[in-house]
This record gives sequence, structure tokens and C-alpha cells, in this order.
Amino acid sequence: MKDLISIDQLSVSDIKQIHDLAKSFFRNDDLKRSFANAQDDKNFSLSGKILVNFFFENSTRTRTSFEIAAKRMGAEVVNIDISLSSLKKGESIIDTAKTINAMNPDFVAIRHNSSGILNILKKYIPASLINAGDGTNEHPSQALLDSFTILQHKESLQNLKVAICGDVLHSRVARSNIKLLKKFGAEIRVITPPTLMPFEYKSWLKEQFDVTVFDNLESGIKDADVVMMLRIQQERMLGCYIPSLSEYFKIFGLTHEKLKAAKPDVLVLHPGPINRDVEISSDLADDEKFSLILEQVEAGVAVRQSILQFLNN
Amino acid sequence: MKDLISIDQLSVSDIKQIHDLAKSFFRNDDLKRSFANAQDDKNFSLSGKILVNFFFENSTRTRTSFEIAAKRMGAEVVNIDISLSSLKKGESIIDTAKTINAMNPDFVAIRHNSSGILNILKKYIPASLINAGDGTNEHPSQALLDSFTILQHKESLQNLKVAICGDVLHSRVARSNIKLLKKFGAEIRVITPPTLMPFEYKSWLKEQFDVTVFDNLESGIKDADVVMMLRIQQERMLGCYIPSLSEYFKIFGLTHEKLKAAKPDVLVLHPGPINRDVEISSDLADDEKFSLILEQVEAGVAVRQSILQFLNN
Amino acid sequence: MKDLISIDQLSVSDIKQIHDLAKSFFRNDDLKRSFANAQDDKNFSLSGKILVNFFFENSTRTRTSFEIAAKRMGAEVVNIDISLSSLKKGESIIDTAKTINAMNPDFVAIRHNSSGILNILKKYIPASLINAGDGTNEHPSQALLDSFTILQHKESLQNLKVAICGDVLHSRVARSNIKLLKKFGAEIRVITPPTLMPFEYKSWLKEQFDVTVFDNLESGIKDADVVMMLRIQQERMLGCYIPSLSEYFKIFGLTHEKLKAAKPDVLVLHPGPINRDVEISSDLADDEKFSLILEQVEAGVAVRQSILQFLNN
Repeated sequence: MKDLISIDQLSVSDIKQIHDLAKSFFRNDDLKRSFANAQDDKNFSLSGKILVNFFFENSTRTRTSFEIAAKRMGAEVVNIDISLSSLKKGESIIDTAKTINAMNPDFVAIRHNSSGILNILKKYIPASLINAGDGTNEHPSQALLDSFTILQHKESLQNLKVAICGDVLHSRVARSNIKLLKKFGAEIRVITPPTLMPFEYKSWLKEQFDVTVFDNLESGIKDADVVMMLRIQQERMLGCYIPSLSEYFKIFGLTHEKLKAAKPDVLVLHPGPINRDVEISSDLADDEKFSLILEQVEAGVAVRQSILQFLNN
Repeated sequence: MKDLISIDQLSVSDIKQIHDLAKSFFRNDDLKRSFANAQDDKNFSLSGKILVNFFFENSTRTRTSFEIAAKRMGAEVVNIDISLSSLKKGESIIDTAKTINAMNPDFVAIRHNSSGILNILKKYIPASLINAGDGTNEHPSQALLDSFTILQHKESLQNLKVAICGDVLHSRVARSNIKLLKKFGAEIRVITPPTLMPFEYKSWLKEQFDVTVFDNLESGIKDADVVMMLRIQQERMLGCYIPSLSEYFKIFGLTHEKLKAAKPDVLVLHPGPINRDVEISSDLADDEKFSLILEQVEAGVAVRQSILQFLNN
Repeated sequence: MKDLISIDQLSVSDIKQIHDLAKSFFRNDDLKRSFANAQDDKNFSLSGKILVNFFFENSTRTRTSFEIAAKRMGAEVVNIDISLSSLKKGESIIDTAKTINAMNPDFVAIRHNSSGILNILKKYIPASLINAGDGTNEHPSQALLDSFTILQHKESLQNLKVAICGDVLHSRVARSNIKLLKKFGAEIRVITPPTLMPFEYKSWLKEQFDVTVFDNLESGIKDADVVMMLRIQQERMLGCYIPSLSEYFKIFGLTHEKLKAAKPDVLVLHPGPINRDVEISSDLADDEKFSLILEQVEAGVAVRQSILQFLNN
């Protein structure tokens, strides 16, 4: 496999392979300490490779995660800051992509606000293309790290009750996670304000993935093994879909109290950055008994190391 | 040789040496794969060296090309983003340059909008100084890569008919190319709107480089072996020198039709980023039979690897 | 020692250890040339380590100095540009810091405009935290490099008469230097406009560090061995504390003439970037007989290499 554009491309066996390799990197201090001298090791075969981080949307966390992952694998990283780039001079994104590609990078990680744009760009980029988030479409590395994080605490994804709460309609994180979790036989519920769930999308979710939609948090997370909270894009939500942040928190914000409806050993995930006391109470976000938010970040580096290695094979 | 500021500094033999070394890097996958472990190889002797990319004008393509070139040679790269820098605090460029130099980099690549500024800065920077484009003066690495690209398709530059079309007056790319190509005995024509060709400059081009100036594209490219199109700086051209982009394209834009006046095996170059259907028709830009635009980008990395190595000796 | 947040943390012996190690890096060309291959050398044991430069204020010089220092030690560097970061999306600095920390960097160098913020952040960052300047509080690496630079020219800091001139009240550079120099028994005078020296601060300086305050440059630098000029933050000074730049220069600007009051072999330091003919005359800034301004920059890299190594032990 050359590119990672959509979870659709990955078989269950591919995902297991990525998870297994990530496991070998995760919290492996011996490996961390030795990586620089381990250029001949099969796990560190990215020495001399170049990753271009090609980000058209700002993202400290995802860009830094890919950068650290690549460097831990011995690769070089070139960051391209698009706000300073020739795009401003009127060059099309396809011409920019072809130009970067002509410099023969080995990997190109792209984040862009246009859904599906990587399917266009891949025709022009023979390098390994990695979708680091395209519009409201997909964010496959996030779904791979979310499932990896869950699997550090649960035996298997099969029959796991996973509730995804927030603006599912516009969330590439939700879309990639739903696709991945269904491949492993998880049971998925979606909790979302009715203003953010058009009838057609609700039907599609049901037919395609057997997803049930709730507009009430407590009902949606009943007996859940995992609750994934999504980030609210405040700037695009307020006044349109959501009356106020405090009202959103009151109805859809996750708290210790509401979480009692879920299983006692429920896991709470959030892709970050979190809006404290909007999607999730500040106390719960910091409660290590439930919250895996920082573990997701840590796992993110290991999973991205694994993705780079997987695509390189 | 320590610095690369102007093509004037380079003898024919220097340029051949840079081209030959670049050839050894160009499309050499074996080399690419092995470079990280080849620190003792004479071709990879930049391990432990530091290149500072010191760009006062935005340029994704040139900055990235230098960065990838240096990294392929085993060097470290430090990018200095001037829009975020202490220049805003009122420090003079000479003080900033002296400060960077005091940190003992091995190479400093500078792009700046003041023509000739590197001749001032070189007094203060004992590190190898590379002109990555200074105002309307010179862009020597571009001329070295353009001539290298031509030589992948032509036996020699001697007696080659090269037509350069566009805003030659303000183009550092044109100036460096004219100087380099004349050293090898090429025959150069310039095609440019009369509003962009003052009489004095026209006379100087004729006397200094035996360049003939045309204000008609078809006449200028008659029997040409190479056509170099220059980028139009839309923001500074419109309303002053050029009535409209579509009119410019009609008169000075290169198309398959107009290209029939040139030799059948004519090569088309453009330093990028291209304005499609302004300087060149979109179809022609993508026609690999004529267009070397992406090959120029690819060659750019190899030539810059070679330049770094050449200055290091 | 894990973090370097304040000079208060360092004993005289710690500082001597940092200075001694820096001496082994300073102007050591053999070392420079060989560092890339010297990964097993005890002096280059940072191979495989990652430094995150986490700068919430722009600073070309300090960021670049840390970056070059880390790279000379074989470490990898990840720069986080905060103006492009998720802070804009409303994430708190503590959450951002926890997120970066979850990616397991080895060192995090932070510059921020809030005095004392590192004492909060250190609870959340198990990585080695380095204060690269926090508000008006401290800038410990600057004081370590200033004292290192002085020691290249003076036998000892003990009983050295050091005059610090400028906006001492708001200067983290002054604060860290006063703390460090007093540990070594230097005699410190402060010269500052009375509008910038509240009575309480003056008393505190006297009681805490036996510092005498002058409002006249010539009196303050009488018989001084070292004069440290501070940068004037023009944008925040004018109209509030200082009537005009030319008046400031006339009264508090250092010139050859005024410097005659100091010892004949007086050393002049400035943390940069300098405002020529505001804090210091242009002639004097460039006079290598007195001015150590560029030597401070050069020493800065060696001292920061040493700091990284010291914290790593």
C-alpha cells in the first residue's frame, strides 16, 4: 500500500498490522533511547527518507505528531507553511503538489479543508500520500490511534458499545472512526443535536453502518464501553446550530454524573484540543480513571511511526 | 570559492564541475537510498554542517529545494522566518546577518528584495553565502539548474538559440541565465513588451551580451532550441505595464500554435510558479513533449546539492 | 537537575560545571567538524533526543541559538510556532503543554510573556523544561552566556564591578544576571531612569543583592569592569517612561566618551538586538576593543549546548 487516504482502503488485517507495529513503539523507552543508532534495524528503516508536512490548515498537534514520529524513525522532515506559500501568488494546489512531488519526497502528509481533495492529488503524487485530515471527510491516522488507544484497555473492538457525541455531521474524526470500528464489529451510537443531523444522513448512517442516532446524551451512552467526544468548532456553530456554549454543555457536555449511565469501566476519548466545560467537564477531562485524552496523544506518535513504516514496505 | 552571489564569479569550468556533480545526484535512486549511511563518502561530506535558510521573501519552492538538498547531503537546516523576526523590532539587516553568522553556520542561503544586498552582507558573513534571489539582480542557482536541465536534452549550450520571454527587465532569473548562457556561447533573444524594455537597457543587452530584443513572440522564437518563459508578477504589472492578463496571454503567452515557429524539438522552461493561461497555455505547460517545468524542479534539488558541495570544497 | 527555570536553582558549582562544559564547545573547530560522527562520545550524548522549541513570543536569536545548539549535540529539534497554533482555538496553555509533553520530548524550551509561568507548567511537563525568557522574570540561559563571555576576558567574577544600564525593572536579562553575578561576589550597580525605578524595587535590590541604583550613567559606570546595556522596548517606552529616543541616548546611551569613566579594559555587553544610537553608539557597538556583543551570540550556542547536556545527566 502506497497511500493512506481513507479507512476504506484498509483491511482488518492491515489495521491489525499497524496496531501491532505501533505497540512495539509505544512506551518503549529502550527503543526510544537507541533509535538514532539503530539505522539498520528493520524497525528503523526510514533513515534517509523525507516526510513533507504539507498543511493547509493550522494544526499544532497533528503536524508535531507526524514530525516527531518521522524523526523517531530516523527520517528527515520538511514543514511547508502554506500561509506563507506560493498559493498566495495564485498557483493551483495541483501545481503546488506536483512541484513538491518533483523534489522526490518519500512521504507527503496533507491537511486541507477540502473534503476528498487527496483523491485528486494522489494522481499527481507518486510519493506516499497520507491524509492528515481533509475537510469533513476523513482523518484516518486519528481513527487508527483512537482504536489503538482503546485496545490498550479492552481485549477487542468486537461488540464494543461506542458512543460518539457531538457534531458528527461535520467531523472527519467521527467518519473515520465509524468506518474503522464497524470493520471490527463494534456497535456504534451517535449522539448529536437534531439541528446537526439531517434526515438523509441519519438514514445513511443506519443503512451503511447500522448506527443508531440519539439526541439525548444519557440514552445514547447507556451501557457504553467507550464514549468519544468530538470538538465543537465554536466559531462555526454558535448562533447557527447551537444556542450557547453553556446550553450545549448542559445538554451534550459529558460529566461524571451523566457518565454513570455508561459501563463502570467506560473509556472517554477526545481528539483534542478540548473545550473545557463545553464538550466535557474540566474534572472529567482530567480524571485518569476514565479519560484517555493524553494517552491518545502519546499513542498518536507510535501509531504514526507505524503508519510511515507500513506505507514504506 | 566560498560564496555564490553572481554567475559572474563562475568560470565555464566551475559551471561544468557543478553540472557534473549534479548529474551524479540526479535521479540516482541508489544514492538517495544510501545517503544517510554514507557519511564518509566524498559525495556526502556535509554531515555535521549547518545551512541557514534566511528568507526575507516568501518562497516555498526555493526554500524547500535548498532544505531538501542540504538534508540529502547529510547537513542540518535551520529556517529563519523573517516575518516573525527581530527585523520587526528595528534591527538592521546587517546586524541580523552578523548575529546569525556569530552562531557559526556553514552555509547561509539568503533571499531578499534588495538587488545587490549580498555584496554588502558578504563582508559580514564568513560562512558560505548563497544568493537565493536578490531583488531584480540575480538568482544564480536557478540559472545553474536551468542550464543543467537543458543539458539533459541537448549536447551542448554552444550556439543554442535561446528565447527568453516576459518581464526581462525585472527578472533575476533572466539576468542570471543570460550571463550563464553567454559564457557557453549560446545565442540569446529576448521577447518583452516594449513598455518593459527601456532603450538604455536594450542597448546594454546588445552591447554586453549580443542579445537581440523582440516585441513579437512568433518572431522572437523562430527556430529557437529553447524557450524560457518568465513569471508575470501580476500584482505589480497590471494597469502599469500590461493592460490585462488575457491581452498579455494573447500577445506574449506561449501556446502550441505559436511554438510551431520554433524548432520541432524545442524545449520549454519556466522557473515557476506558473500562471496558467497567462505566460503559457495550460495544455502546453502539461505537455511533456516540450515542457521541462517539473524536470527543472527535480533538477533543482540535485543542482543545489552540488552547489553546497562545490562551495564546501 | 531536570529543569532550568531560574538562576535561583543553580549553585556556584552547577554554574561552574556549565561554564566548563561550554568552554569545551566554544570555538572548538575540531569538535564542530566531528560532531556528527561522534555519537558515542560522552560530550555528544544527545543523539536521538528531541528538543521542542515552544515560543509564544517571537525571537529569532534565542530560538535559532537553541536550535543550533541542540543540532550540534546530535539532537532533533521541533519548532512550534504559537501564532499558528491551537492556542488560537481557545485551548489553555496548560492543555497545550500537556499535549506536547504527551509526545515525550526530552527537552522543552519555552518563551512566554507571562512572568513565572514555567513554575506552573513544570508540574505538567516531566521533560526537561528550559526557561527561554518568561515575561519580566528570568532568562537564565542569557545570564549563563553573559557570565561565560565575561570569563573569557576576566579571571573571575568575584569583586568585578558590573554596571547594568537601562530598563532594569522590566528586564528578565537584568534579573537573571544580578542573581548569577551576586552568587559569585560581583559588585553590581544599576543605572536607570528614575521613572523606571519605583522606590520599593530600589529598596528590594539594595536589601536582596546590595545593588546601588544610579540615575546618571557616568557616575554609575565609574571604574566599572563590565557594562551591560539593556535593550529599550521602544514600543512600550516612548511617551510613558522616556520623552524621546534621542533624549534617552543623550542621557543613558553609552558612547566612547562616557565609557572613559570606566576602567580602561572595561567590557561592554548587550543581549541584542541592539538599537544603534539609542542604548549604545553605533561606533562603540562595533568597537571590538570593548564590545562583546557578537561574542555573546557565539558563546550563546556553546552555553546552550552545555545546558542541554547538563540537564540530560
